[in-house]
Amino acid sequence: MKHKRTIGCVVVAAVLFACGPTASERQPGTAADPLPSWNDGATKSAILEFVDTVTTEDSPDFVAPEERIATFDNDGTLWPSHPMYTQLAFALDRIKELAPQHPEWKTTQPFKAVLEGDMKTLAAGGEKGMVELVMASHAGMSTAEFEAIVSQWFKTAQHPRFKRPYTELAYQPMLELLEYLRANGFKTFIVSGGGIEFMRPMTEAVYGIPPEQVVGSTIKTKYEIDDGKPVLIRLPEIGFIDDKTGKPVGINEFIGRRPIAAFGNSDGDVQMLEWTAAGGGRSLEMLVYHDDGEREYAYGPAGGLENTPFGTFSQSTMDEAKKSGWVVISMKNDWKRIFAFDE
Amino acid sequence: MKHKRTIGCVVVAAVLFACGPTASERQPGTAADPLPSWNDGATKSAILEFVDTVTTEDSPDFVAPEERIATFDNDGTLWPSHPMYTQLAFALDRIKELAPQHPEWKTTQPFKAVLEGDMKTLAAGGEKGMVELVMASHAGMSTAEFEAIVSQWFKTAQHPRFKRPYTELAYQPMLELLEYLRANGFKTFIVSGGGIEFMRPMTEAVYGIPPEQVVGSTIKTKYEIDDGKPVLIRLPEIGFIDDKTGKPVGINEFIGRRPIAAFGNSDGDVQMLEWTAAGGGRSLEMLVYHDDGEREYAYGPAGGLENTPFGTFSQSTMDEAKKSGWVVISMKNDWKRIFAFDE
Repeated sequence: MKHKRTIGCVVVAAVLFACGPTASERQPGTAADPLPSWNDGATKSAILEFVDTVTTEDSPDFVAPEERIATFDNDGTLWPSHPMYTQLAFALDRIKELAPQHPEWKTTQPFKAVLEGDMKTLAAGGEKGMVELVMASHAGMSTAEFEAIVSQWFKTAQHPRFKRPYTELAYQPMLELLEYLRANGFKTFIVSGGGIEFMRPMTEAVYGIPPEQVVGSTIKTKYEIDDGKPVLIRLPEIGFIDDKTGKPVGINEFIGRRPIAAFGNSDGDVQMLEWTAAGGGRSLEMLVYHDDGEREYAYGPAGGLENTPFGTFSQSTMDEAKKSGWVVISMKNDWKRIFAFDE
Repeated sequence: MKHKRTIGCVVVAAVLFACGPTASERQPGTAADPLPSWNDGATKSAILEFVDTVTTEDSPDFVAPEERIATFDNDGTLWPSHPMYTQLAFALDRIKELAPQHPEWKTTQPFKAVLEGDMKTLAAGGEKGMVELVMASHAGMSTAEFEAIVSQWFKTAQHPRFKRPYTELAYQPMLELLEYLRANGFKTFIVSGGGIEFMRPMTEAVYGIPPEQVVGSTIKTKYEIDDGKPVLIRLPEIGFIDDKTGKPVGINEFIGRRPIAAFGNSDGDVQMLEWTAAGGGRSLEMLVYHDDGEREYAYGPAGGLENTPFGTFSQSTMDEAKKSGWVVISMKNDWKRIFAFDE
């Protein structure tokens, strides 16, 4: 009985296997277009052609499914990084919330600047000031408590310009790209300079990326038994910064395979793209270029905004992209819409 | 046409979905027994019952597939850790290979002890000596070079007692357990004190566990451009020790979810099991107990061997297991065979 049933299943599985449309069957603009929020053109074609060639078994560029690793930066690549990183908005809100317990903050920088809304002084404090803010707002509680705080914040906080929860601001074309890659056997990872435990509470719901496929910056934690119950306490000490040269380091340490596709938007992503491109086989490297000040923001070489600490896109990055054959995605020209709520 | 085909696929998928036998349909001892190398008894039943209850949708203990995380220690849990950790055997071979380039090692400990095969002096050197050996043998090359060295070593090195490649020494009952868990929607991870980049070259072939599901101890790496090509250089500096209290820390950092099942064999696994048990829902904690000196090794409270640095199983661990309801696997009584090549 079980034996017959098994044979039946193999036959059924074989039929099922022949079902899904292949990448090459899908034509841009038809009902089966997997990237409907992308305008037809060279950028969209580059994606379709790449996926087609690495998933076609008799292609010289064929890549086995387990090696189809795609890595995505988060801020500025999957959702906005302006007017400031989402995580900084969280840190500022958290400092304000904790201020009553810290009267000394009224007269101590960078806390004074936060409480007075003085962004100029805050920016002048540089990295040292930022680290102080992160330590004061992200450490000193258990990992479970931090997860609860972050989850609660995501439920209530709104983006100052779009007046919506940050979790609704994922770029619709990138959501389609993530889904399209996964439908073609890719495993999608986030590799972000953002805090790993700040992202994990929302990545599965927003991007379809589970916590174990999120790589990010860390602070150290310590295992303790608290009242008979084990807890991990978040310490005010940086563990690892997953940015710039840290991105290949993080990819190697957390994933242990080299990506064949990588997506970024700033100078901090250059090394991740270099590392991906140096794998030896066919690969795809893309940079989201923020040139749409009307629907989102414009910065970088051709942008209207000045470069800010939140996702700098230098001329040198643009030059390296051109030299290396990386695809620059123009948000203005390549994307039919930016957000799911756009018409 | 595409529309019709899609409907057909949904029907086929529905049929397929009804195919595989459920955990409760499988009876120990029948042809469909998923754990044929396990003797019937309380230990095997504990596994079958646990998997059944967390995968049955109307069970109060049901766990959604994405939360079915199972973590396995490696040395002593999935393969032998005697007469020494496999990785130490690798380090010793490597030191001997590099010795001609280091004449000073003839008169410097712990290298002198390695070259003279003086295991007593080596053991007396303690952790400091071990770290020196690891740094001399595991650092100073690119990650790609190290991977090639490790892969080559696994092809030729043999276990001193079993006279077979280490990769053939995976415990057959544990291989069946890994496969059984995966067939029931679990994602299986290694969480080992061993070096993450020492394990990754073999875990997929030996255990069916891909590199991105391996957590282990790390040394730091540095991104460099070498002759126009990006490389990651392995530095002689410890990154993270994934042992004892480090295991929950590593699980939280690399996986970002708490396991519902965890498997170890030594004092170094206690905190991983504590962390797993404290998750709030139904969970399974197991310790492989080495009490079979005839077919493998015997050590720990009832063992014939003295405890060694390679997988100590103290009386206190046995006591905590009993108190906490962790299942102790007797290799002698619970396993029909130890290795695939056993009759």
